[in-house]
Amino acid sequence: MLRNDQLAEWDRDNFFHPSTHLAQFARGELTHRVIKTGTNCHIEDRDGNKMLDAFAGLYCVNVGYGRQDIAAAIAAQAKELAYYHSYVGHGTEASITLSKMILDRAPANMSKVYFGQSGSDANETNVKLIWYYNNILGRTEKKKIISRWRGYHGSGLVTGSLTGLELFHKKFDLPLSQVVHTEAPYYFRRADLEQTEEQFTAHCVAELEALIEREGADTIAAFIGEPVLGTGGIVPPPAGYWPAIQKVLKKHDILLVVDEVVTGFGRLGTMFGSDHYGLEADLITIAKGLTSAYAPLSGSIVGEKMWKVLEQGTDENGPIGHGWTYSAHPIGAAAGVANLKLLDELDLIANNRDVGSYLNKTMTDALGDHPNVGEVRGEGMLCAVEFVKDRDSRTFFDAADKIGPQVATALGAHGVIARAMPQGDILGFAPPFCLTRAEADEVVEKTAKAVRTVLG
Amino acid sequence: MLRNDQLAEWDRDNFFHPSTHLAQFARGELTHRVIKTGTNCHIEDRDGNKMLDAFAGLYCVNVGYGRQDIAAAIAAQAKELAYYHSYVGHGTEASITLSKMILDRAPANMSKVYFGQSGSDANETNVKLIWYYNNILGRTEKKKIISRWRGYHGSGLVTGSLTGLELFHKKFDLPLSQVVHTEAPYYFRRADLEQTEEQFTAHCVAELEALIEREGADTIAAFIGEPVLGTGGIVPPPAGYWPAIQKVLKKHDILLVVDEVVTGFGRLGTMFGSDHYGLEADLITIAKGLTSAYAPLSGSIVGEKMWKVLEQGTDENGPIGHGWTYSAHPIGAAAGVANLKLLDELDLIANNRDVGSYLNKTMTDALGDHPNVGEVRGEGMLCAVEFVKDRDSRTFFDAADKIGPQVATALGAHGVIARAMPQGDILGFAPPFCLTRAEADEVVEKTAKAVRTVLG
Ligand SMILES: Cc1ncc(COP(=O)(O)O)c(C=O)c1O
Ligand SMILES: Cc1ncc(COP(=O)(O)O)c(C=O)c1O
Repeated sequence: MLRNDQLAEWDRDNFFHPSTHLAQFARGELTHRVIKTGTNCHIEDRDGNKMLDAFAGLYCVNVGYGRQDIAAAIAAQAKELAYYHSYVGHGTEASITLSKMILDRAPANMSKVYFGQSGSDANETNVKLIWYYNNILGRTEKKKIISRWRGYHGSGLVTGSLTGLELFHKKFDLPLSQVVHTEAPYYFRRADLEQTEEQFTAHCVAELEALIEREGADTIAAFIGEPVLGTGGIVPPPAGYWPAIQKVLKKHDILLVVDEVVTGFGRLGTMFGSDHYGLEADLITIAKGLTSAYAPLSGSIVGEKMWKVLEQGTDENGPIGHGWTYSAHPIGAAAGVANLKLLDELDLIANNRDVGSYLNKTMTDALGDHPNVGEVRGEGMLCAVEFVKDRDSRTFFDAADKIGPQVATALGAHGVIARAMPQGDILGFAPPFCLTRAEADEVVEKTAKAVRTVLG
Repeated sequence: MLRNDQLAEWDRDNFFHPSTHLAQFARGELTHRVIKTGTNCHIEDRDGNKMLDAFAGLYCVNVGYGRQDIAAAIAAQAKELAYYHSYVGHGTEASITLSKMILDRAPANMSKVYFGQSGSDANETNVKLIWYYNNILGRTEKKKIISRWRGYHGSGLVTGSLTGLELFHKKFDLPLSQVVHTEAPYYFRRADLEQTEEQFTAHCVAELEALIEREGADTIAAFIGEPVLGTGGIVPPPAGYWPAIQKVLKKHDILLVVDEVVTGFGRLGTMFGSDHYGLEADLITIAKGLTSAYAPLSGSIVGEKMWKVLEQGTDENGPIGHGWTYSAHPIGAAAGVANLKLLDELDLIANNRDVGSYLNKTMTDALGDHPNVGEVRGEGMLCAVEFVKDRDSRTFFDAADKIGPQVATALGAHGVIARAMPQGDILGFAPPFCLTRAEADEVVEKTAKAVRTVLG
């Protein structure tokens, strides 16, 4: 075994960590942490520190850590065939089986699944397919994609443009011009405090209508959204939001891409967020929960309506020019099959519903009245606590005060991992679905303690 | 075990295969093939057919199939910790070790490695970093990327724009405007048949100069190229090409991105293609050979010069807003470490040099004089045979005649997999590095037979 100080040196000398302050890390001012193992909701680092991971990695280890069934499936696949490509009709038993399992679980009218490696590349695929679709239909000007401020759809150039968060735009020249943004469905942050939730929904709809009017409906190809805003703050939509939005999209013949990277495979207590909110998607993005992160795998589920046009496209133009070397990678496919089986066998979505609502209720009980807590909100196994300087006037803290990060750090010192969401002082929770009520109690108690440490 | 016909039905009903004629596949007109296992240079499908894979998957299974050392490393990692993220200074022993192993092998002046999942996303990262770099330096207009026609750099929207092949642009509205293309360094396809190789190089350089002049050097951020054109036709550069191109780039302060997804980790008989051609990269793209495809993993190796500016950027702006959930995925990292070790232990690059040049020589001996063979060319363990209608006038076949695909199919019938490259009638070979001389003989003999079957 390598000495830790040796690893630390190699780390700082060679490893470009994502979403990191590069200079501080290189200078040794930022913690270097080596994770060693994990079981259910806990991880352990190389120094023997055990943590309750109430964010499931990056809300992706849905079935929990250390699941030996999935590890065994990965091992067996690696032993038998670690790789072959899936171009031109090739596959493996695992990738074909998984495609069937996904479609069996998907909402109605979904037809096929295209596999990628990441949520970002699946959204990249979606945009490519949307443009191809409208070209085949001869609607060559109908190409722009509407996204929402505070949406998160990836970290690439186009997918980072879809993302509506400053951190991912600043200094990267994003968003690119093919993407336009509309109002975030974020009732707590409404500009007009007098608005009821219903009025705010009407405002979001009016903003969308105005944007479409301004740009011209014949230039707008699609609308992308997460059922519940994730990285933008963990925000369930205001009452009546999705039915009203869908009506507008239908009227203007605008495709709906539902990004279920976080919500797919159970996080809201239903198999898909689309089931929960009655969404009728043309494309569904999946990743994280598909394998519970045991191996990189994503997918674009293509609806029947688009699929027919894609088929027409290849009859007219030959094979489709889109492929990743690792599309439907055998290891990812094997992990996906084992993961979806485990989700069923352990009835984890039912536990998620039970403990998720328990977590949200106890968090509200513990912190709902704190003078610096503006809102406790959630859905399924997602929960967020948003901090404010003043509750009555809903005044926010200065970003420079780093209240969210401070609370997350204090909570970490108590052995619980939550995530300071990147925009606003919001502490996010997205534990594995196997969270027990006792663990939920621990998360809530320690969060309350951390909040008191930082804010009194 | 599932019945094969059952799998076939699931496959056609649910699976969207990359680079496939979707309508033909759904209608059952295109073969559905389920790959089961593999050893060294051979794969076996579910019906018991054994094939010599002379394209190593998609030129990625460099160490060969069935390597139990890598499978064991994957299994051990899956058992201990399948996933934790690498954001904000987190890592695993494998990911840190791999970052060190990569930098130990990389050309001089390289500083850090950012991990992704695919070659495409690594190039996406490269473009993001280039834009960020020039923004930090205050050169806000210096943003365009020059790529070559026939380059292949990915299948996303920006990376598919970098790619200079019609199949990946048509009906997808690519290339996007941020990318401009210059002459392919493809001597055999020069417009002016009178040109010597040196004259053709001078022509490529003049074309590049003219493009920079036209666009304005202060609008051009970077130039991207593969050391040897891969998917564009497996074409080593003409004599003197890289030194002359690098001179132009230096003069105009244009960054050089060397895409080593195919050439990295030994394919040309040196660790990197950059070593082979004396390239001084600012960014190096790696993927395929990094893990020999045993798990999805890619990387952007960032040079010292850019790294310093990235550090400055985070001192000025805080953490960098770029991250993939699966950056430095533990399974990929474990596969990478085991793969690079195996490459050394089995001295596979030396075998590659030996058998690669043997393959190129015997292929030239067997087919160099065939009236429909315009050129046999290669470098290291890469080889291509380009077909022509008429040798003396260098007249090409109609694409509609599908000569390349026909020869590949005939060769497949003899049990050898080669790839009909997507543009032009070019049969490509990129076997695993463990190819034996006897296997090289088999590839050549059967290729000659297939050529005679199709072309006489
Ligand atoms: C809703 C959503 N879409 C897409 C992505 C991008 O996924 P990845 O990080 O795998 O590229 C994420 C990642 O957090 C996400 O939350
Ligand atoms: C040179 C080069 N760059 C990038 C890529 C893209 O890699 P991936 O298919 O993993 O996205 C490829 C794939 O063939 C490649 O050959």
